Amino acid sequence: MTIQKNIYVNGIEQNIFVDPDTFLVKVLREQIHLPGTKVGCGEGHCGACNVIIDGKLVRSCVVKIGRVANGAKITTIEGIGTPTNMHPLQRAWVKHGAAQCGFCSPGFIVSAKALLDTNPSPTREEVRDWFQKNRNACRCTGYIPIVDAVMEAAKALRGEIPVEDLDYKYQPGAEIWGSRYPRPTAVPKVTGTIKYGADLILDLPPDRLYMALVQAEVSHANIKGIDYSEAEKMPGVIKVVTHKDVKGNNRINGLAFPSNKGDGKERPILCDKKVFQYGDAIAVVLAQTEAEAHAAAKKVKVDLEVLPAYLNLIAAKAPDAIEIHPGTPNVYFVQPHIKGEDTAPIFARKDVVIAEDYIITSRTPHMPIEPDVSFGYIDPDGCVYVHCKSIGVHLHKLMIQEGLGLADDKLHLVSNPMGGTFGYKFSPTVEAIVAACVIATGRPCGLIFNYHQQQQYTGKRSPFYTKVRLAADKSGKILGMETDYDVDHGPYCEFGDLLCLRGIQFLGACHDIPNIRGEGRTVCTNHGWGSAFRGYGGTQANFSSEIVADELAAKLGIDPLEFHLINTHYPPKDGKPGSTNPSGQELCSYSYKQMLEDIKPYYEEAKKRAKAESTATVKKGVGIAAGAYGCGLDGPDSSNAYAELNPDNTITICTAWEDHGQGADMGAVGTAHQTLKPMNVCPSRLKFTWADTRNPVSGPAGGSRSQVMTGGAIRVACENMLAGLKKTGGGYYDTYEAAKLAGVPTKYDGTFSVPGVPLNENGIGKPFMVYMYGVCLAEVSVDINTGKVHCDNIVFNIDIGKVNNRSVVDGQLYGGVAQAIGLALTEDFEDIQKHRTMLGAGIPYCKDIPDTIKLNYYENPREFGPHGAAGVGEIPLCVPHPAILNAIYNACGARVTRIPALPERVLEALKAKK
Amino acid sequence: MTIQKNIYVNGIEQNIFVDPDTFLVKVLREQIHLPGTKVGCGEGHCGACNVIIDGKLVRSCVVKIGRVANGAKITTIEGIGTPTNMHPLQRAWVKHGAAQCGFCSPGFIVSAKALLDTNPSPTREEVRDWFQKNRNACRCTGYIPIVDAVMEAAKALRGEIPVEDLDYKYQPGAEIWGSRYPRPTAVPKVTGTIKYGADLILDLPPDRLYMALVQAEVSHANIKGIDYSEAEKMPGVIKVVTHKDVKGNNRINGLAFPSNKGDGKERPILCDKKVFQYGDAIAVVLAQTEAEAHAAAKKVKVDLEVLPAYLNLIAAKAPDAIEIHPGTPNVYFVQPHIKGEDTAPIFARKDVVIAEDYIITSRTPHMPIEPDVSFGYIDPDGCVYVHCKSIGVHLHKLMIQEGLGLADDKLHLVSNPMGGTFGYKFSPTVEAIVAACVIATGRPCGLIFNYHQQQQYTGKRSPFYTKVRLAADKSGKILGMETDYDVDHGPYCEFGDLLCLRGIQFLGACHDIPNIRGEGRTVCTNHGWGSAFRGYGGTQANFSSEIVADELAAKLGIDPLEFHLINTHYPPKDGKPGSTNPSGQELCSYSYKQMLEDIKPYYEEAKKRAKAESTATVKKGVGIAAGAYGCGLDGPDSSNAYAELNPDNTITICTAWEDHGQGADMGAVGTAHQTLKPMNVCPSRLKFTWADTRNPVSGPAGGSRSQVMTGGAIRVACENMLAGLKKTGGGYYDTYEAAKLAGVPTKYDGTFSVPGVPLNENGIGKPFMVYMYGVCLAEVSVDINTGKVHCDNIVFNIDIGKVNNRSVVDGQLYGGVAQAIGLALTEDFEDIQKHRTMLGAGIPYCKDIPDTIKLNYYENPREFGPHGAAGVGEIPLCVPHPAILNAIYNACGARVTRIPALPERVLEALKAKK
Repeated sequence: MTIQKNIYVNGIEQNIFVDPDTFLVKVLREQIHLPGTKVGCGEGHCGACNVIIDGKLVRSCVVKIGRVANGAKITTIEGIGTPTNMHPLQRAWVKHGAAQCGFCSPGFIVSAKALLDTNPSPTREEVRDWFQKNRNACRCTGYIPIVDAVMEAAKALRGEIPVEDLDYKYQPGAEIWGSRYPRPTAVPKVTGTIKYGADLILDLPPDRLYMALVQAEVSHANIKGIDYSEAEKMPGVIKVVTHKDVKGNNRINGLAFPSNKGDGKERPILCDKKVFQYGDAIAVVLAQTEAEAHAAAKKVKVDLEVLPAYLNLIAAKAPDAIEIHPGTPNVYFVQPHIKGEDTAPIFARKDVVIAEDYIITSRTPHMPIEPDVSFGYIDPDGCVYVHCKSIGVHLHKLMIQEGLGLADDKLHLVSNPMGGTFGYKFSPTVEAIVAACVIATGRPCGLIFNYHQQQQYTGKRSPFYTKVRLAADKSGKILGMETDYDVDHGPYCEFGDLLCLRGIQFLGACHDIPNIRGEGRTVCTNHGWGSAFRGYGGTQANFSSEIVADELAAKLGIDPLEFHLINTHYPPKDGKPGSTNPSGQELCSYSYKQMLEDIKPYYEEAKKRAKAESTATVKKGVGIAAGAYGCGLDGPDSSNAYAELNPDNTITICTAWEDHGQGADMGAVGTAHQTLKPMNVCPSRLKFTWADTRNPVSGPAGGSRSQVMTGGAIRVACENMLAGLKKTGGGYYDTYEAAKLAGVPTKYDGTFSVPGVPLNENGIGKPFMVYMYGVCLAEVSVDINTGKVHCDNIVFNIDIGKVNNRSVVDGQLYGGVAQAIGLALTEDFEDIQKHRTMLGAGIPYCKDIPDTIKLNYYENPREFGPHGAAGVGEIPLCVPHPAILNAIYNACGARVTRIPALPERVLEALKAKK
Repeated sequence: MTIQKNIYVNGIEQNIFVDPDTFLVKVLREQIHLPGTKVGCGEGHCGACNVIIDGKLVRSCVVKIGRVANGAKITTIEGIGTPTNMHPLQRAWVKHGAAQCGFCSPGFIVSAKALLDTNPSPTREEVRDWFQKNRNACRCTGYIPIVDAVMEAAKALRGEIPVEDLDYKYQPGAEIWGSRYPRPTAVPKVTGTIKYGADLILDLPPDRLYMALVQAEVSHANIKGIDYSEAEKMPGVIKVVTHKDVKGNNRINGLAFPSNKGDGKERPILCDKKVFQYGDAIAVVLAQTEAEAHAAAKKVKVDLEVLPAYLNLIAAKAPDAIEIHPGTPNVYFVQPHIKGEDTAPIFARKDVVIAEDYIITSRTPHMPIEPDVSFGYIDPDGCVYVHCKSIGVHLHKLMIQEGLGLADDKLHLVSNPMGGTFGYKFSPTVEAIVAACVIATGRPCGLIFNYHQQQQYTGKRSPFYTKVRLAADKSGKILGMETDYDVDHGPYCEFGDLLCLRGIQFLGACHDIPNIRGEGRTVCTNHGWGSAFRGYGGTQANFSSEIVADELAAKLGIDPLEFHLINTHYPPKDGKPGSTNPSGQELCSYSYKQMLEDIKPYYEEAKKRAKAESTATVKKGVGIAAGAYGCGLDGPDSSNAYAELNPDNTITICTAWEDHGQGADMGAVGTAHQTLKPMNVCPSRLKFTWADTRNPVSGPAGGSRSQVMTGGAIRVACENMLAGLKKTGGGYYDTYEAAKLAGVPTKYDGTFSVPGVPLNENGIGKPFMVYMYGVCLAEVSVDINTGKVHCDNIVFNIDIGKVNNRSVVDGQLYGGVAQAIGLALTEDFEDIQKHRTMLGAGIPYCKDIPDTIKLNYYENPREFGPHGAAGVGEIPLCVPHPAILNAIYNACGARVTRIPALPERVLEALKAKK
């Protein structure tokens, strides 16, 4: 069915031939070749696909082209401004760091344009209302920089400020360290000209194949047969790939710890014997068009023997539960924790006050706006290239190459410019499947997940089921802690052992707790395999202990902030060591006390406000929490980089620091610029690189290690460059020609290592050499009739060492706080069907996040951080959510011990209180 | 084989995945989706694909992407300017009418940009040298408007004139009739944003199929079998279509005259029993990618019994020649000519001087820069749509629907925005094949010819082999003419009978010849089927008689211009009728005498110059010729249009006037604007339509009938609109709302008919009610050592009635003169292999055309032309080429009687003279 449609897109007439049922976004992207309009959720929940049709803002992923009027005038991001001629909105977006991963930026900018076209002078609240009403979702920024950008662009458009005020003005010779210098990828992001994976797939050569997965629709089963004979006969089908086509051992190597009872190789690339969770990939249909691939995928018949599905760890630990991976117990990893004195006698003392609770965290979905995407091809040397959203290219290469049966020099992974991952891409997702299809067909293959696949078949934050007991004396001083927790890691163990350690490391980490006894375990289940998520483990652990600490303060009758101050860490003094964290390690910055004291005025004011503004039905409250997170992997860690002076006098800062929106671009350029200061390099000369296994091994971009570790490697490389290019009489050979004439090298390697010590069998060590710290105050309103909670205000005091780039770091914190609010109140992936959409899974929109998030920095330099910097990404996902839960308690006395604190859970807790 | 390539296109970074052997233009168009860069010849002969790489002008159709450096900075037309922000070159292009069909415009503008980037102040000659050196070919403009545009843009870029001077300034209320108002399609053409057929094919929906033709590589054969079993098994192949899949009678209906000995249905859609000429289509492979279609096409095996090939009419007329279409004699149409007295007695008189010669014209290739292209699909109502370059949509529908077996309401033809056709698309080419494939598969199918296919498998100008005898008395007055000619029409008769009439109509047409006897015949051969070509028949006929007239003048010792004046047509006077043309019809404008007299000063000057500048080896000379052409089909003709006031207050001028660059857009808008003058309509309110069989039946855009006939229909429609919208108290309901409120219709039909009379059995009638006339002077240089001829100067006095748009008409004349120069000196399609390329077939480049073409208009209003206008397209292909051949004779005494006057023919004629 084809019709001709006449439309004007960005002022240009288009006469296109289309199936009238095709969605407009597909027409714009694939037929009119304007890939600036993005497909996020694909069902009208995120606004990444916003365009303006005849003056009206429209989500083009839900509008069929047949319903667009002939002659309609459509504006896409490409029609708003170009890199060399940006619209004030785009310039303001750059200035305010409103594009982080940038995937939502085109949709937001188009939306803002539609708003300002009709209301040139909106208030902040009107801007927020607009984005809320139009369901513009951003997962990176916490919305505040976006609203800032709209407000300032509107001013410029009204002529109240010069348009030039929207641009960053670099003064030659100036430092950019600590400044708001715009990230290098900002302009292509705000103009829709950067190409993400799904855009690059559109540019694949004409022999490219479309992939459709055949996925399990049960959570646990034995596979008795796969019949794809009918599918292979379907039109356009080139091949159906199953586990039989995978050349290696068909396993992702989960890199299990020696103490893991599994071997870490239980995750198949394509299922062979069993289905372990809903969505597991069983076969792939490769066809010449997307429609053909999907039509044929429906014809693949899988013969399954359905087994009992253990959808949480309680079910999987039941005595009658079978082993999900036969031969490996469902509880496959155990880590004890022994610090200080035995706690049993402490808890037995009569003069102590004890609080204890059982806290359950959610199987949180990452909900990037960009769904997972990957493609691959074989180069003329027979090497398989996989382009993807990997945030650990070298790590993932190691994890998949044996499964694929590829020699080390026959596989390369490359990071696309990509939307946020928030950690889920610390695990490989579709990379091995894409590679297997490329190998099986010899042709370029690409796969773009729809949002249901994104939700159902990528890793999730693993729930912790945690019992915490705290004992304090009457003065409020914590004497000891006892912990006991299980991690529901889903069916695949990769890093499930590592995650378990995070409980040891971060339960009670913000308090001086001299004596700890505890045990953590990782459990295999059939639901949502565990992958990294910003704050990894710390999110779950700190939440549990901060709830119980709040309970303890209440029991003691001590104000929670006061309780924090009583128990806060103290530095070494007069030759005496400082207090230590749960791993027995001294802190790298004893800033808690200052941060707690400085939050007091806000706290007092907030308490007054809560009292004044509470009504009979809406109760307001204030909560406090603190927390820490480590920057690095566990134990010794190192990273590599090089700096190279190019013939055009640019300097490439080459690393494999993956940029998933967190700012690897700015991280690399900022760190290098600061190091190269003696050479007086204009920042525009510095070029960062997208991650690639052909680049130096920098280690993965997870656990906030990159600014510390790869930043360190960049610092060393640049210091080596300075030394190498230094003239004996002073000055530098700072041009390529000068260096070549002087005969000095133009390329300089840099390696940076830290002397970490992994946790020992008792959970003691120095897993990280750099930590970040934070103290958070949250204000909430609780509707005690409906149970609905709104977070009204956040004050966040943070010590992340020296700040590399203020816009990037602000953005990380605003965005992290927004995710913490979602985590606390709405986000979940427990119900496989209901939670497969953004809306269903509770993504926070603009008005779910307060417009007031106050950030106060404590820039205490870190010994092991380049130019004193630590990381930042995790701290906002370790602290605000317990502050919010504690604020709910403060508001209405409802102690919610399971997140998200959905209305029904709040109501239940209110009832329990009575 | 895929590699990743990093390039910057128009300032935007592109990381693309490509086969390194792919040509850059394909990457730019199909992978980076910038269709502004065009593919013309595809082998570096035309420059339509020009881009700038790192400052250097490059023909992107011959550069493999693997050889483009990583990091290369590429500028395409899209990067030079956009419709809302045009570069001065683009603005100058619009102003000077330098874009006619527009297909070459992007390549020229990019080329000019590269020139001005390095030489901001070029002389005209330097501009011409640049285009010559870089092989920028234009087939429409004769290059002069292009050089004008470059010169003026350069001035603006140098700041010598304001950039605003490059824009047409419309004064509200002004007439645009006779002005240089830019054509409505100019801006999209110069910005590369208009989508031609090959661009639209890129936008087809994903289920579209690629077509590869299996074509004959012999010129005459019986088909014994077609085996496509192997091809059907090739990857990606959906179907192989042969004549068996064509549902109707598999014949193009050539609409033969009753007196034609054939039935006009000898041309198969896909060959069934025989191959009739090289390139005939035998089968079509439909596959999912272009590469797959072509790979599989090679596997189709055709079993042929090769027959003798009659590659010219002499061979086909030989007594032993078999009938090419069994049952129809190879000489299948005969037309006698009897005007006035019997000529035998005249020629027998002793006092007459007789000249006679045997003149052969070439099988001229049209050589549009855009190769043939078509695509089709089925709409939800089961109607087949074929989009194509048809310049006769209703005519072609009639010609193909029976062959396809489609009911009248199940087929629609639509004209794409298209490059020039110069007449070849008066015959259907691939439309029926595309439709057959769409029907056979139910899927959208598209076909783009490469240039070899364009040359070898579209119609050509049919050679005339003509004997002309002229007898004059001693005073130089022509007393009689005898003619005898054969038309080599190739294997298919469609319009071969009509073409034969043109010999009757235009042999000797510029002279008053009272007595004529003659006969013309159409002959079937196996080479290059005949289709219309601008000047159709008049080109061949007038050439022959003007050569012989020149010979006669020489014999008489009378100066050729004087000879013309002696024999020129005279108007009715004192109740006595005026002289008549060969059809016995009075002239519609007796302007020859004035035009001849006015050319005298140029002629005298030219003769002096020739004498002064001739050297021992380079001889210069001057030639004169005159001629006429008719505007219309033969006999009665009519056309339809409507004018409709739209809700947005634009007025649609709806016709099926096909625009192949000649200016249907401006023709329609200019004619309507002039008619609607009382309503004071701003021209931007007038919208023309691309031709479509759903539009009113306007008749084909051939034979310069459109401005007269469809222009007439537009005039009537607009007059009806004026009458309908007129208020009783004065003024008009000139807005949609006003018309609706007043209850008057918003849509007004218009029909225009002329009372023509077809030629009778003696060749007498009134075939056209409007004619155009011209007198041309040509100056040439002949290198008598090499035989190489260059045309140095042209003066062209033309009477085309009132001029609708001066830029369009100038462009038609410049471009036509350029084609006449090519026709005279270089262009040919006799050698199927050598002439399959633009270069091989002798396309004229910039310096082959003089920079001085002087046009003098004689705007004698035509009774049957709207607002007095005639047509213009043909006259420059009827007159200049005999003037050039006569100038060669004048220069060196070489009488060349066969065109093109290639060096070897000139040398031969020089030898014959001695």
